[in-house]
Amino acid sequence: MRSLLFAGATRPDLVAKLPRSRPDAAVVDLEDAVPADHKEAAREAARRLGRELAAAHPSLDVYVRVNAVPTRWFAGDVAEGVDPTVAGVVIPKLEEPAQLAALRSALADHGLGGLRVVAGIETARGVAHVERLLDLGVHAAYFGAEDYIADMGGVRTADGDEALYARSRVALAARVAGVIAVDQAVVDVRDEEAFRRDAEQGRAMGFGGKICVHPRQAELANAAFGADAEQCDRARRLLAAWEAAAAGGVGAIEFEGAMVDEPALRMAREVLARGGA
Amino acid sequence: MRSLLFAGATRPDLVAKLPRSRPDAAVVDLEDAVPADHKEAAREAARRLGRELAAAHPSLDVYVRVNAVPTRWFAGDVAEGVDPTVAGVVIPKLEEPAQLAALRSALADHGLGGLRVVAGIETARGVAHVERLLDLGVHAAYFGAEDYIADMGGVRTADGDEALYARSRVALAARVAGVIAVDQAVVDVRDEEAFRRDAEQGRAMGFGGKICVHPRQAELANAAFGADAEQCDRARRLLAAWEAAAAGGVGAIEFEGAMVDEPALRMAREVLARGGA
Amino acid sequence: MRSLLFAGATRPDLVAKLPRSRPDAAVVDLEDAVPADHKEAAREAARRLGRELAAAHPSLDVYVRVNAVPTRWFAGDVAEGVDPTVAGVVIPKLEEPAQLAALRSALADHGLGGLRVVAGIETARGVAHVERLLDLGVHAAYFGAEDYIADMGGVRTADGDEALYARSRVALAARVAGVIAVDQAVVDVRDEEAFRRDAEQGRAMGFGGKICVHPRQAELANAAFGADAEQCDRARRLLAAWEAAAAGGVGAIEFEGAMVDEPALRMAREVLARGGA
Repeated sequence: MRSLLFAGATRPDLVAKLPRSRPDAAVVDLEDAVPADHKEAAREAARRLGRELAAAHPSLDVYVRVNAVPTRWFAGDVAEGVDPTVAGVVIPKLEEPAQLAALRSALADHGLGGLRVVAGIETARGVAHVERLLDLGVHAAYFGAEDYIADMGGVRTADGDEALYARSRVALAARVAGVIAVDQAVVDVRDEEAFRRDAEQGRAMGFGGKICVHPRQAELANAAFGADAEQCDRARRLLAAWEAAAAGGVGAIEFEGAMVDEPALRMAREVLARGGA
Repeated sequence: MRSLLFAGATRPDLVAKLPRSRPDAAVVDLEDAVPADHKEAAREAARRLGRELAAAHPSLDVYVRVNAVPTRWFAGDVAEGVDPTVAGVVIPKLEEPAQLAALRSALADHGLGGLRVVAGIETARGVAHVERLLDLGVHAAYFGAEDYIADMGGVRTADGDEALYARSRVALAARVAGVIAVDQAVVDVRDEEAFRRDAEQGRAMGFGGKICVHPRQAELANAAFGADAEQCDRARRLLAAWEAAAAGGVGAIEFEGAMVDEPALRMAREVLARGGA
Repeated sequence: MRSLLFAGATRPDLVAKLPRSRPDAAVVDLEDAVPADHKEAAREAARRLGRELAAAHPSLDVYVRVNAVPTRWFAGDVAEGVDPTVAGVVIPKLEEPAQLAALRSALADHGLGGLRVVAGIETARGVAHVERLLDLGVHAAYFGAEDYIADMGGVRTADGDEALYARSRVALAARVAGVIAVDQAVVDVRDEEAFRRDAEQGRAMGFGGKICVHPRQAELANAAFGADAEQCDRARRLLAAWEAAAAGGVGAIEFEGAMVDEPALRMAREVLARGGA
């Protein structure tokens, strides 16, 4: 998930163009991109657009971002906005384990229990609880710096130091839980240099991809987060060691000094996916 | 609490001038500003100066900083140094929940149970326990970088990276607990540019104000931490949404995607206070 | 422990030269410096080299780094690679309390129960568990940035921001537990300026020394981490206050506002040791 590209459900023109820049995942958004007075009307469009996109592009992971669990839109978004043929739902501003339970229950109620969940960690409480939240088993998590800093009552700056603690903590929690970590957005879509710099920083910290709010950003993210030969090689060796051990009936192995666990296996597969292998 | 301006209890001249630079809160200090051999004699002055200041400036929040709970001065400071008409006490180097309990008990013993508590988080153990400490209900907390780094055996530098983790963690813990967060001091009182830069950084991280050790710093802090129109507007909308829900008998609401809880309400009121509303 | 200088057990020439640059501690390495197909053969050399070095240089702390607990080499390394006359063992990639228990048990089984343990915190899981791990009583801990960032799937950069959170968190956990904190390596051994800068940063954060992978780095580390007169003076006053209280039958005391506990006493002794007192 090198690139997670968003477009609002009220903009079918943008949604239709999502696959062009070849993002790894595309999100039809019912949250930030849809104003309050269009939320309900947008659900049918989200459902239809999600279904059409998934059908037309089988190799593209299509998601629908519903509104946060405490909002008055959440229940209706899950009930009416998510087609069962999409890859999963994105749940923004996740803050409490109970909210994740509520989401899973709502998904199950509507025959969507098999869908993936991508968690948005983008509030003070979300960051404060991130270890517990990601331990409950989601497919991926993104760190939303804009919303986090707004919730902190702070201000975003060019160097981004105000978010470094939270961003680092989310990356670590994701790694420990074996969850794909997706890095913060760059809101100025014209500043490609800022996006490249931010993506490099995110990759250095261990993120596997980036939220994208413009097609051009998806191309930049794919380039920045592609796994290189060395990373792919290490992942291949780790998986081979594990498979050899499993074939011999050995349950737990180590690789280059550290224990190989389920999270490590998932990360290795993710690296190979990013490397195009 | 954009500015928390300190003066030693042994310096009545400085204490008398505290209100001139219009700090949001003034502290008569019995801790760092008073040498060990003057501690006991300074108590009567602290009590009298606190009472006089509070009487003469009803809109100014007056505090007395006592010595830390484990010190031999603590009990006497609370018993003899704090007038019941001040707004509260500042407790430095808070490290353990038991210390906060000891403070509340001592305050109650001397008819000071209604006073606010401002917690100083400025040691390794204070930072390591900050989430638990702030969850016990204090009015505000400040992060003291000088003492923290001294306790770590480290050195303060110009870029301040050595304290970024602790400073960020205190800001987050304060936000989650709904506690006003006051940022570190700048000890070189002549370097206004350094103060401005540090204040901007602190504000970006979510702090609501700054410790000030010189009147000029209080003016700079008030300018740096004033809430802007957008922040005030958001706070007003949040409070309005909550009041409307409360009027309709709804206990829990959301605002712009996140759950509105007691901490969020307190932060909103704090923003309006900072914005002069 | 201003400098912790490593040399591979398969390089007796380098091991013999370890004392020349006057490191505070020397490590005969069975882990990263020894390739997989030489691990078993290297044990006898590690044992002999450790014994000879300790005998020839009584004032030098000699350690053997064994391979990580989950590796197939761990048990044999402890059984055959560690002479009882060395100061201790270094255990890399420590991740779980159970691994530390396994190490202590293995040490006891081979009459090595009295040896010190130096813990390597250098994986995502090690950092995520660092508070619990260091609370179990080790002599020192080092933060390994290269391995940590590799385990995160990240990339090391010149400014090192990608590791700042983890590095800071390890330093704090060590300080709270009263464990000596040893800072990350600088792998480019020719770049002395980078080493100096990194050492200054580490010292600012509260680290007491640095991993060294070249003799020249040990000299630089000794210079960078020497405690200055002010730090030594503070440590002497703290110890004097504690001794006076103990002589008077007082169990718990405070020093300059904060509680003096066992970790604080150990840190003070460490400062004096670093200051050459």
